[in-house]
Amino acid sequence: MADFHLTSREYHPENTIIEVGGAAVGDGGLALIAGPCSIESEDQIVRIAKAVKAAGATMLRGGAFKPRTSPYTFQGLEAKGLEYLIKAGREAGLPTVSEITDETQLDLFRDIDIIQVGAKNMQNFGLLHALGKVPQPILLKRGFGCTYEEVLSSAEHIMAAGNERVILCERGIRTFSDYTRNTLDLSAVPMLHELTHLPIIVDPSHATGIARLVPPMALAATAGGADGLIIEVHNDPIHALCDGAQSLRPEEFADLAKKVFAVREVLQ
Amino acid sequence: MADFHLTSREYHPENTIIEVGGAAVGDGGLALIAGPCSIESEDQIVRIAKAVKAAGATMLRGGAFKPRTSPYTFQGLEAKGLEYLIKAGREAGLPTVSEITDETQLDLFRDIDIIQVGAKNMQNFGLLHALGKVPQPILLKRGFGCTYEEVLSSAEHIMAAGNERVILCERGIRTFSDYTRNTLDLSAVPMLHELTHLPIIVDPSHATGIARLVPPMALAATAGGADGLIIEVHNDPIHALCDGAQSLRPEEFADLAKKVFAVREVLQ
Amino acid sequence: MADFHLTSREYHPENTIIEVGGAAVGDGGLALIAGPCSIESEDQIVRIAKAVKAAGATMLRGGAFKPRTSPYTFQGLEAKGLEYLIKAGREAGLPTVSEITDETQLDLFRDIDIIQVGAKNMQNFGLLHALGKVPQPILLKRGFGCTYEEVLSSAEHIMAAGNERVILCERGIRTFSDYTRNTLDLSAVPMLHELTHLPIIVDPSHATGIARLVPPMALAATAGGADGLIIEVHNDPIHALCDGAQSLRPEEFADLAKKVFAVREVLQ
Amino acid sequence: MADFHLTSREYHPENTIIEVGGAAVGDGGLALIAGPCSIESEDQIVRIAKAVKAAGATMLRGGAFKPRTSPYTFQGLEAKGLEYLIKAGREAGLPTVSEITDETQLDLFRDIDIIQVGAKNMQNFGLLHALGKVPQPILLKRGFGCTYEEVLSSAEHIMAAGNERVILCERGIRTFSDYTRNTLDLSAVPMLHELTHLPIIVDPSHATGIARLVPPMALAATAGGADGLIIEVHNDPIHALCDGAQSLRPEEFADLAKKVFAVREVLQ
Repeated sequence: MADFHLTSREYHPENTIIEVGGAAVGDGGLALIAGPCSIESEDQIVRIAKAVKAAGATMLRGGAFKPRTSPYTFQGLEAKGLEYLIKAGREAGLPTVSEITDETQLDLFRDIDIIQVGAKNMQNFGLLHALGKVPQPILLKRGFGCTYEEVLSSAEHIMAAGNERVILCERGIRTFSDYTRNTLDLSAVPMLHELTHLPIIVDPSHATGIARLVPPMALAATAGGADGLIIEVHNDPIHALCDGAQSLRPEEFADLAKKVFAVREVLQ
Repeated sequence: MADFHLTSREYHPENTIIEVGGAAVGDGGLALIAGPCSIESEDQIVRIAKAVKAAGATMLRGGAFKPRTSPYTFQGLEAKGLEYLIKAGREAGLPTVSEITDETQLDLFRDIDIIQVGAKNMQNFGLLHALGKVPQPILLKRGFGCTYEEVLSSAEHIMAAGNERVILCERGIRTFSDYTRNTLDLSAVPMLHELTHLPIIVDPSHATGIARLVPPMALAATAGGADGLIIEVHNDPIHALCDGAQSLRPEEFADLAKKVFAVREVLQ
Repeated sequence: MADFHLTSREYHPENTIIEVGGAAVGDGGLALIAGPCSIESEDQIVRIAKAVKAAGATMLRGGAFKPRTSPYTFQGLEAKGLEYLIKAGREAGLPTVSEITDETQLDLFRDIDIIQVGAKNMQNFGLLHALGKVPQPILLKRGFGCTYEEVLSSAEHIMAAGNERVILCERGIRTFSDYTRNTLDLSAVPMLHELTHLPIIVDPSHATGIARLVPPMALAATAGGADGLIIEVHNDPIHALCDGAQSLRPEEFADLAKKVFAVREVLQ
Repeated sequence: MADFHLTSREYHPENTIIEVGGAAVGDGGLALIAGPCSIESEDQIVRIAKAVKAAGATMLRGGAFKPRTSPYTFQGLEAKGLEYLIKAGREAGLPTVSEITDETQLDLFRDIDIIQVGAKNMQNFGLLHALGKVPQPILLKRGFGCTYEEVLSSAEHIMAAGNERVILCERGIRTFSDYTRNTLDLSAVPMLHELTHLPIIVDPSHATGIARLVPPMALAATAGGADGLIIEVHNDPIHALCDGAQSLRPEEFADLAKKVFAVREVLQ
């Protein structure tokens, strides 16, 4: 086992609660972060923001810088996208979450409430160190090839650099199992809760890659003790520029939201 | 995709319900199968049987033939163990489940209600064909290195040999993730429900190998739509001859049983 | 680490050499086992036997009982197949290797020189114990989901049951890497050589599933210290009833044989 | 399959040969890159440089910026380390290779001959795009959780950004196999050679994490068709500040060098 100090529950027994714009993660409730994989237009993100807010979402997500595997696919609206996202968050009354892919983008993220580090950058230590200096909380996704110890070490890098507000996110790992995009490793939730005081949320959309599996896996994550969920919602999944196959329609999301809150309540 | 006929939901749209000794799997309720990894004595299995019955278990499990990796560890009480299990089941009013490891044992399983095929024998086709001829339902565990398609193919082998009552069981797969014994792949539940009409249960005890993780993973499996759970319960986990580290005490199991039934109810 | 006695190099420092019908495995030379995945006719196996013998093969392989994932594909010629194999071995002057899938077949294997246990049956302990009583050496393939410790434990089962002549075989493991059928784990060769005195051979045909990759992986295994290779050769891969895509034609095998012996020689 | 243009062998049938400071990769010979995991002092790197040059190495490697999982371990000598490396390369007459972890370091790499991207940064697209603008070749290591398609896509990012001199490197993937640090996937060598015209080298040191396994895996990689090897060599492995357990001593490296060149020769 590596050396853990700042992330370790041993040194910090109480749960860390992360509050931002009226919402919280890790306070015993269920944070519900929803929105499209990619921001495609102002109209799109504003409509989705209002719909997910009405359904019970507590934060709005939307990608503007997309770390796409291929250089030839849609890479996001970039600065323009963040602008739309901030506007949509304000109109809907939701704090915003978006992924940064390079520290040169930091200035553009000034008005984003939570900055996300994606799975592909979990061990981009230069980026982690830069995020140790920002005032916002960091949503750190577990790399698809990384262990619990490694995601905690990456959180330790951010915290050692000065930012103690880190949210961990399980989003599936690479295995031989080939029906789903990745294998959602829900044991990470109780195991990481034991090892660290930081909150743990779950992303069933990227883990499964299949919209039909998102509701059961979101319910499973909730019952397994996750502090929150991050779920892709798109008004028109078939024409989405990115990851449509795993996006819920707003009405499907509303139905799921009711169920996850009901499960959460019965388990409290 | 391989050739599926008997297991395929396409050819058999309604859920298969498996009824045995007053209990059912796949009927929309939650089958709760509990008991020790190994039967150690008549007294032990009778006491556990009564305790899990009182807590809400619907079936009793107990191992008599243990397919242990090493030839030098406890291999089970064999015939004597099955005898004790049957007695305990009768006294507690619970149908019984036990693992067969070789077709030469078949005679001894005459009075066992459900015959289990363990992960290590999932592709022991000779055994599967022999189980195609027995009157009892088969509980078929997914091999830790096997895909959904392969577990369905093994069920197809049993069914093609004449036994259409097969229950599938997800019990964790081998991945690089090294904190838990295996990685519980809960996406198997909704995905297999889509592909087949057979019921799917989950074994959180073998998947995680850690008793503290069994309750959250049992709750997650329930919320994710499993038709049942199979959980290791031991009166004295520290002195168990096999797998003590993953066994719940009867009172922990009773607490968990309340919660899983509550989750099930809220989702119906 | 599990308990190892009979397989352990600590207790048995010298290499075990397995001799059969004039050929040897583990004597410092390179055993070259070749033949078709499935025996399809007497003519087919006799022709292949003569071709691989001429090319330098030291043993003849051929499958008669095929543990096929699906019950609806060709399951082998069974008893008839073994008969043809024995005849072909005699005509070509090569000892024979064939896979057993169930202990009820044992009588039919009386005249087979080496009995193979396939990856799917590596933990079929009933079968392993039965093979502990036969006079022939056992070729034990590593399960595609199994660790080094587990393959050694399975060898320990055979040896503890009375048969000390076991050859281990690396044939690829299940990983997320999806271009090849499995991932050939060549580190198994030097690592198992350290842990055990038993010989280790490599099967590049099943590991890769792609005929074009068989020569480079056979050469790599040889240079990495394997005691032998087991390679699928078919006179007409396109019409093979099983695994044609990974079979070499006799002339490709002859070319490869020259190269592997050259590599072996330069490293001695 | 993703969209490949610049990396694809289809569009560029001839092998790409990368020449730098008198050495070449991909020209049909075997590039032999050797040196310590971390540069620890001027004296250390100069001594190792001379030793590996005498043994037949064609390039000198040494880490100055170490992307360590934990923030509390040695992170490298940074600028000072690169200075020592360049000096050692000049004294020994070897071109140099060193890993960059952040684009802010680019200026310091001006006099390094080949810039390495480590496994953890394989999908750090900001860094890849910056490296598309430099005059030096890039040594791109496959991420331990990444597919062939993904490593090719990352090369495509660098090439699309303007730098067509990319060397790919297989260094082991994450699997359930737990005796070695990672599982060296040598099938990557012939498979990537089929898919791309870029040269492929192999790193047996990081893949296995065990010095005793480096020679057999280096030989296997050579026989399997690798265009080169990158091997950790340290004058005093027991006291190395990083990865001592996998480093060869100079005399072990010299012995290995003779063997790999002999294997290469016999296969030409």
